[in-house]
Amino acid sequence: MFYTIDILGTIAFAISGVLVAFNKKMDLFGILIIAFVTAVGGGTLRDLLIGDTPVSWMTDITYTYVILGAAIFAIIFRSKINYLRTSLFLFDTIGIGLYTLVGIEKGLNAELHPIICIALGTMTASFGGVIRDILCNEIPVIFRKEIYATACILGGITYFLLREFPIKDNYVFVVAGIVVIVVRLLAVKFKIALPNIYSKDHV
Amino acid sequence: MFYTIDILGTIAFAISGVLVAFNKKMDLFGILIIAFVTAVGGGTLRDLLIGDTPVSWMTDITYTYVILGAAIFAIIFRSKINYLRTSLFLFDTIGIGLYTLVGIEKGLNAELHPIICIALGTMTASFGGVIRDILCNEIPVIFRKEIYATACILGGITYFLLREFPIKDNYVFVVAGIVVIVVRLLAVKFKIALPNIYSKDHV
Amino acid sequence: MFYTIDILGTIAFAISGVLVAFNKKMDLFGILIIAFVTAVGGGTLRDLLIGDTPVSWMTDITYTYVILGAAIFAIIFRSKINYLRTSLFLFDTIGIGLYTLVGIEKGLNAELHPIICIALGTMTASFGGVIRDILCNEIPVIFRKEIYATACILGGITYFLLREFPIKDNYVFVVAGIVVIVVRLLAVKFKIALPNIYSKDHV
Repeated sequence: MFYTIDILGTIAFAISGVLVAFNKKMDLFGILIIAFVTAVGGGTLRDLLIGDTPVSWMTDITYTYVILGAAIFAIIFRSKINYLRTSLFLFDTIGIGLYTLVGIEKGLNAELHPIICIALGTMTASFGGVIRDILCNEIPVIFRKEIYATACILGGITYFLLREFPIKDNYVFVVAGIVVIVVRLLAVKFKIALPNIYSKDHV
Repeated sequence: MFYTIDILGTIAFAISGVLVAFNKKMDLFGILIIAFVTAVGGGTLRDLLIGDTPVSWMTDITYTYVILGAAIFAIIFRSKINYLRTSLFLFDTIGIGLYTLVGIEKGLNAELHPIICIALGTMTASFGGVIRDILCNEIPVIFRKEIYATACILGGITYFLLREFPIKDNYVFVVAGIVVIVVRLLAVKFKIALPNIYSKDHV
Repeated sequence: MFYTIDILGTIAFAISGVLVAFNKKMDLFGILIIAFVTAVGGGTLRDLLIGDTPVSWMTDITYTYVILGAAIFAIIFRSKINYLRTSLFLFDTIGIGLYTLVGIEKGLNAELHPIICIALGTMTASFGGVIRDILCNEIPVIFRKEIYATACILGGITYFLLREFPIKDNYVFVVAGIVVIVVRLLAVKFKIALPNIYSKDHV
């Protein structure tokens, strides 16, 4: 089941990459690279930093097929992709819940400090988009208008708090993932953002 | 002989980096870094992703000398470099043929899937230019007007097809390399590009 | 004592990151990431290239606390940070002296060529700023107006020259570090830059 979520998240991330690449008038090759980077960039950075190489998408060819398939689908049906907006948003949100926890567990396996594990989880979920934006010559959107990271961090804190109690690992995993998803849904629904640190008259 | 080609490719890549850095009015240090990154960036990314560290240019000092020499040459004779345009284009083209195959063989050594090997080959040949463009604050030219990647991919496919037949490894290597070179030369000569996916009236 | 210098350098780098992120109107998350990247980016790249993973800031949580503390301090007192300009410049300068030597010694441990070791030292001291500028969508300032690298390179050369003599390792380390610091201070005081390679009438 986790694998299914992973694949759905990968599809949503890849399609979001295609849409950004379209806006930049990239050619077919550029679009595929951006789809790839958006989908696997966060996990790749995580694997590089902890030294878990070859990085994960290289050793499981399924990701490559899924990303290529999603990208080609998005290119062909790009005028209709708006109809899928809600589904893609849900896949994407569930995906970041899972990616956060995958990153945390990889950090734990490498015996890293809980704060570093949470950083790795947040990175897994959000740095694909950061690398995508750098390749598209934009300041990463997540640095200006935070859309992911707080949800990932709160989910990560939940994970480590729950581990202090005698709860089965699977439940801890699921509850923390749900925290990520719910925080993100609420933030989008109620337009909650990080406190503005710039005084109004300067903006 | 492969080593000679490698060095000629490195020279061509380094000089192309110098020329881009000139246009950005970089200082001496910036120019050297861009020359370096253009020449070894693709191989460095490949080595990082498969975990082959220290990365290759760090363990063979020849690359450093060649890149420094080529960069200083290009800085001193920059007003005359146009006379070398054809030679540089040939070095560059032969270089990507070789780099593609070096990437593929490194992927095979790491026991990766043929598609991942071809991706590593293409990355070796083309991502030096991608990193160069990012450092110069441009959208990578290869994502907008594809100039390399199709040739690398076709050469890679040739490589894996030929391996199915009882042909000596050396011949497979040479023929696949020639495919990369010929496809690239034809593409440049006949101005062949990837199919345009944007409708005319929107461009 | 080296650890204290390291921490002071980390503080200065983190605060410089916060100030750049402010100018880009980043939100709280973006500011923290830029502070982090500026402080540890150079060492992270070095560790990745030589394959020393998990990278160093992941295995010593102190860096995370120091960077978070420095960033929050800089955010709260940002209107007053000008009063600290001289202290921060000194921390920063002492920091690059130390970082250069840490990079060199890591290169020696990996049995790399002296030139590669000096490159690693320079990278440790200066590539945090490069990654910061890329994330902020700027051409790295160090490529246009060199502010660090020459000092790092001269300090590195001093280090390897002194090692030829029967001098205690600690002294070599300290003298080379002082060379970095003095060259940088003199360069800033007397506005020394790399020779301009662009003819006046073209600029």
